[in-house]
Amino acid sequence: MPSKVRIALDAMGGDAGAAVVIPGAAISLQRHREIEFLLIGDRAKIEPELDRHPALKAASKIIHTDVAVSGEEKPSQALRRGRRTSSMWLAIDAVKKGEADVAVSAGNTGALMAMSRFHLRTLPGIDRPAIAGMWPTRRGDSVVLDLGASIGGDTHHLVSLAIMGAAMASVLFNKKRPTVGLLNIGVEEIKGHEEIREAGEILRARNLPELDYLGFVEGDGIGKGVADVIVTEGYSGNIALKAAEGTARQMAELLRDEMKRGWLSKLGYLFARNAFQALRNKMDPNKSNGGVLLGLNGIVVKSHGGIAAEGFAYAIDVGYEMVKFDLLNKINQMLNREGGALSSVQAAQEAVS
Amino acid sequence: MPSKVRIALDAMGGDAGAAVVIPGAAISLQRHREIEFLLIGDRAKIEPELDRHPALKAASKIIHTDVAVSGEEKPSQALRRGRRTSSMWLAIDAVKKGEADVAVSAGNTGALMAMSRFHLRTLPGIDRPAIAGMWPTRRGDSVVLDLGASIGGDTHHLVSLAIMGAAMASVLFNKKRPTVGLLNIGVEEIKGHEEIREAGEILRARNLPELDYLGFVEGDGIGKGVADVIVTEGYSGNIALKAAEGTARQMAELLRDEMKRGWLSKLGYLFARNAFQALRNKMDPNKSNGGVLLGLNGIVVKSHGGIAAEGFAYAIDVGYEMVKFDLLNKINQMLNREGGALSSVQAAQEAVS
Repeated sequence: MPSKVRIALDAMGGDAGAAVVIPGAAISLQRHREIEFLLIGDRAKIEPELDRHPALKAASKIIHTDVAVSGEEKPSQALRRGRRTSSMWLAIDAVKKGEADVAVSAGNTGALMAMSRFHLRTLPGIDRPAIAGMWPTRRGDSVVLDLGASIGGDTHHLVSLAIMGAAMASVLFNKKRPTVGLLNIGVEEIKGHEEIREAGEILRARNLPELDYLGFVEGDGIGKGVADVIVTEGYSGNIALKAAEGTARQMAELLRDEMKRGWLSKLGYLFARNAFQALRNKMDPNKSNGGVLLGLNGIVVKSHGGIAAEGFAYAIDVGYEMVKFDLLNKINQMLNREGGALSSVQAAQEAVS
Repeated sequence: MPSKVRIALDAMGGDAGAAVVIPGAAISLQRHREIEFLLIGDRAKIEPELDRHPALKAASKIIHTDVAVSGEEKPSQALRRGRRTSSMWLAIDAVKKGEADVAVSAGNTGALMAMSRFHLRTLPGIDRPAIAGMWPTRRGDSVVLDLGASIGGDTHHLVSLAIMGAAMASVLFNKKRPTVGLLNIGVEEIKGHEEIREAGEILRARNLPELDYLGFVEGDGIGKGVADVIVTEGYSGNIALKAAEGTARQMAELLRDEMKRGWLSKLGYLFARNAFQALRNKMDPNKSNGGVLLGLNGIVVKSHGGIAAEGFAYAIDVGYEMVKFDLLNKINQMLNREGGALSSVQAAQEAVS
């Protein structure tokens, strides 16, 4: 019997709350029987859902709270109102207290980030956390970060993203030295914001043993899978992710429309059904759900807020894998083994400015 | 007989130079018989290509120069070395002198931007030019700008992009009041960079008669076609565009692979060929080729550097349409009719800071 993985769920997070979180947990439990859940939120909303999933009920404990963070609250408001009481806070708190190995929430991203940072604190040498996600590419998956945890970001932040992303890729892809690219508007060294060029120079000069820095990558290089890890600050990362997701949806819809247009196409669709199913599986945005908050003393996973139970289950799977792969310790080891790489980057920057 | 449209082509621009530019011009000429071309570059490279296209030869004049801007040159280098002599400069110069109505180049973007700005100068109230492109959406095309002309951009720049983009959309889509959205990482008013939030506030408060400001749009809203015009600064615009293009290519390749996987799928492909062709046509990146440099005293069109003749022809078509629709005058009128909207934005900003 494998050892238990304890997952705390913010059962009130996301557009649908418990109606998605609970069935999502049931799906994930079918795949990973060794999960134990802490379901945190309004007992009156959780229990009716839980009654429909006896196996999940047997593997779960409910922690009741009336307070939930809303999607509209500013991070500072959420922190003020929901600290110590909200379902989101209590899920993070379970990680802090060692009662859970990971917290998963589909709630307000800014609030989740603020509460995680406030309560779990960042790792040594990390100024602020990032959200890392999996991006389906021609060559398999790539880790892309930051997908919108915090916007902007100086040279030091970009270098720390590279190191944390490489740690995540090395455990997920079982690679000693994952390839890393910096997202930019051209591959030439002269292009882009100053902080991106500087981060590129530092990564090239340091030639870290933990990652193989390839240089700049353009937006269309992500989907080609040119690097295991793509690093960018949160604003452009979020824009890139959503533009790509939107295009994938748009193409799928166009294809569906066209396939309905004549009987020959309809027949063709029937014959090629398996091919379409395979495409759908590969580009399924549900499967890419679950962004990992990196850089904290604890593991927190953010799910899309508007997703259905199948998608939320994938976010739980991500949390499960991060625990199984011992991601947090690996990141910590890499940061330490790097012998203060991050602090020396910071020192060099300060010396320049 | 319609009046002539005179187009100056940088025949040395792009990865393949004359070998793409000349056949591209021949394709566009078949669609628009009233074009007259100025072909600028090395006569020894242009003439052999031109001999294969007698109709184009009859509609063209060659302006010889040995100097060509390379893809690797920094804008400042290109300006120093290629000013007054390079094929790129001479194409822009033909517009400046009134010998051409529009210049089209597939050359170095930074150099093209720098030379255009230096030689043509920006319109009153516009601090720097932008590249506007057409984005295929579920609802038709949208104008998206800036696609990478210059990175960063303050509130005033974003507001001027909105006004110029609306002018372009109004002539292209024949709409009195095109809808405009600001690209952001969330639709809530509190999200994103300060300059984006400020630009949103100004556009909402001014309620301009020339455009209908809708608010923030996320990356996946572009492909949904939620607004006629999507405004963003150049870095994230370029990243979004390339991420979307990459995803479209990736899905087309995946689908092709899957379709070859079994005889049933192959049969299905044969039956549904028209549907696939329709999808390819709608998502063809060639057709979106041709970014319009907005904000200058003259019209310049930038083609992708790595594109084939069919794609370059679309960039010429874009230039042709901008002339036919009298875009430059319309933008100028809109800026003037706005009664100094831009300068008052600038003044308000200065008062605040």
